[in-house]
Amino acid sequence: MSKYSTEEIAVMSPEDFRNIVRKGEWTGPNRDACRGYAFAGLAAVPKEHAYDFVLFCLRNPRPCPILDVTEPGDPHPRFVAPHADVRTDFPWYRVIKDGEVIDEPTDVTPYWRDDLVAFLLGCSLGIQGALVKANVKFRFNGIFNTNIELTPAGQFHGRMAVSCRTFPTSEDAVRAIQISSRLLASHGPPVHIGNPTVIGIENMTKPDFPLPVSAPPPEPHEIPLFWACAVTPQNVALESKTPYMIVQRQGCLLPIDKLVDEIAII
Amino acid sequence: MSKYSTEEIAVMSPEDFRNIVRKGEWTGPNRDACRGYAFAGLAAVPKEHAYDFVLFCLRNPRPCPILDVTEPGDPHPRFVAPHADVRTDFPWYRVIKDGEVIDEPTDVTPYWRDDLVAFLLGCSLGIQGALVKANVKFRFNGIFNTNIELTPAGQFHGRMAVSCRTFPTSEDAVRAIQISSRLLASHGPPVHIGNPTVIGIENMTKPDFPLPVSAPPPEPHEIPLFWACAVTPQNVALESKTPYMIVQRQGCLLPIDKLVDEIAII
Repeated sequence: MSKYSTEEIAVMSPEDFRNIVRKGEWTGPNRDACRGYAFAGLAAVPKEHAYDFVLFCLRNPRPCPILDVTEPGDPHPRFVAPHADVRTDFPWYRVIKDGEVIDEPTDVTPYWRDDLVAFLLGCSLGIQGALVKANVKFRFNGIFNTNIELTPAGQFHGRMAVSCRTFPTSEDAVRAIQISSRLLASHGPPVHIGNPTVIGIENMTKPDFPLPVSAPPPEPHEIPLFWACAVTPQNVALESKTPYMIVQRQGCLLPIDKLVDEIAII
Repeated sequence: MSKYSTEEIAVMSPEDFRNIVRKGEWTGPNRDACRGYAFAGLAAVPKEHAYDFVLFCLRNPRPCPILDVTEPGDPHPRFVAPHADVRTDFPWYRVIKDGEVIDEPTDVTPYWRDDLVAFLLGCSLGIQGALVKANVKFRFNGIFNTNIELTPAGQFHGRMAVSCRTFPTSEDAVRAIQISSRLLASHGPPVHIGNPTVIGIENMTKPDFPLPVSAPPPEPHEIPLFWACAVTPQNVALESKTPYMIVQRQGCLLPIDKLVDEIAII
């Protein structure tokens, strides 16, 4: 466990929180950090694959909204968090080589290369926070793989991962769709409403990407909504047998210097 | 003049209108065509510059919203208008070589190359139509160069071009901002409100990109709004001395198979 409480990390600035991560003082999921700020996932790929990957993101904007793209070898996202270092400031990583996870370090400096381009991609923590702030009632059910095929680009192809939240009333669910629709950098509106089996999720009690938080699956009278999830690029790297990609581990994201509302649409 | 009336082209499908352009039966500005459909501008660049250009567009989403990117040598925008041919279906082109306009043909088949990647970028015709449909009062003042520096990427840099529309009341102007904010593929909300000299426009009676339509400049009690304009890539090609780029001439755009409302946000 960390020496910092939930409330302590909630009121930290992105810079301060990134510093405790960089020092190794926080290594797990961080959804409660830096209240009000937007978060990013990571997909670092060699420059020779960067064009195909940027097209892949453009063709799949729900799972892969692009927040920033670094210059080759540069670990600093100059547009959204210039003082951040993508090699050290995510709490936990996965390193993928030839479509296999070869390591899960908390610092990828040894895996960094001069030809790596880091894509900072949106994540749904912005939606999570906006729903809480608007007093929408829901519970988070976890992250699941689906059968939703993504639009390929070059070598990159695969299926979407989603996060599920369950809403007790239609009013809460509609409000959640309204609120998330303006948050395109946080995956925007849901990609699916209702029956999880329609998108290939058979067991709602067993998330494919375990997180410390969990909640009972939807009851028949409740409405589950499914948002595209920031673990999608690692699914893509595994399915595409990508030569090399560094990603964040589920729930272990980078707070950027922009507020959720600062990069909201409308 | 064309043998087709304004009302005839307004009710044409994008496919039908592209066919009359392809046959050479329409060669000028086409803002009245295909009512309700979205339009695209063009920036075709060699594959070796495509990565820098896609980053340039991502860093400047107001002037350069990306609708589609073709495979090298493929003239068909598979995602937004698969039957369109970008070599023939824009009414009028500019061909730029080493930062100079070398030709202004109505068909760029002779200039097409196997390594060209076509970027289809949004244009403000969607906003124009949405304002008319919502009974917002305004007049179109033309397209102007500005002093607004764009965020560079690789070799690409330059200044934004804008289109100006003047609104008789604050109510009309506010409504225009609300309506255009959801139309990100049509440049989204304005980039400037009010005094044109602030963005380097000295003479509102002399648009830098002449069009057949024109209207008196704003009176002191009126509100001019300035939107990023689809001629920006040609400014960029000229300022960056880009080796090779094919663009559309001002006002000469491609109707795509998507309705304005179909690709609107929210």
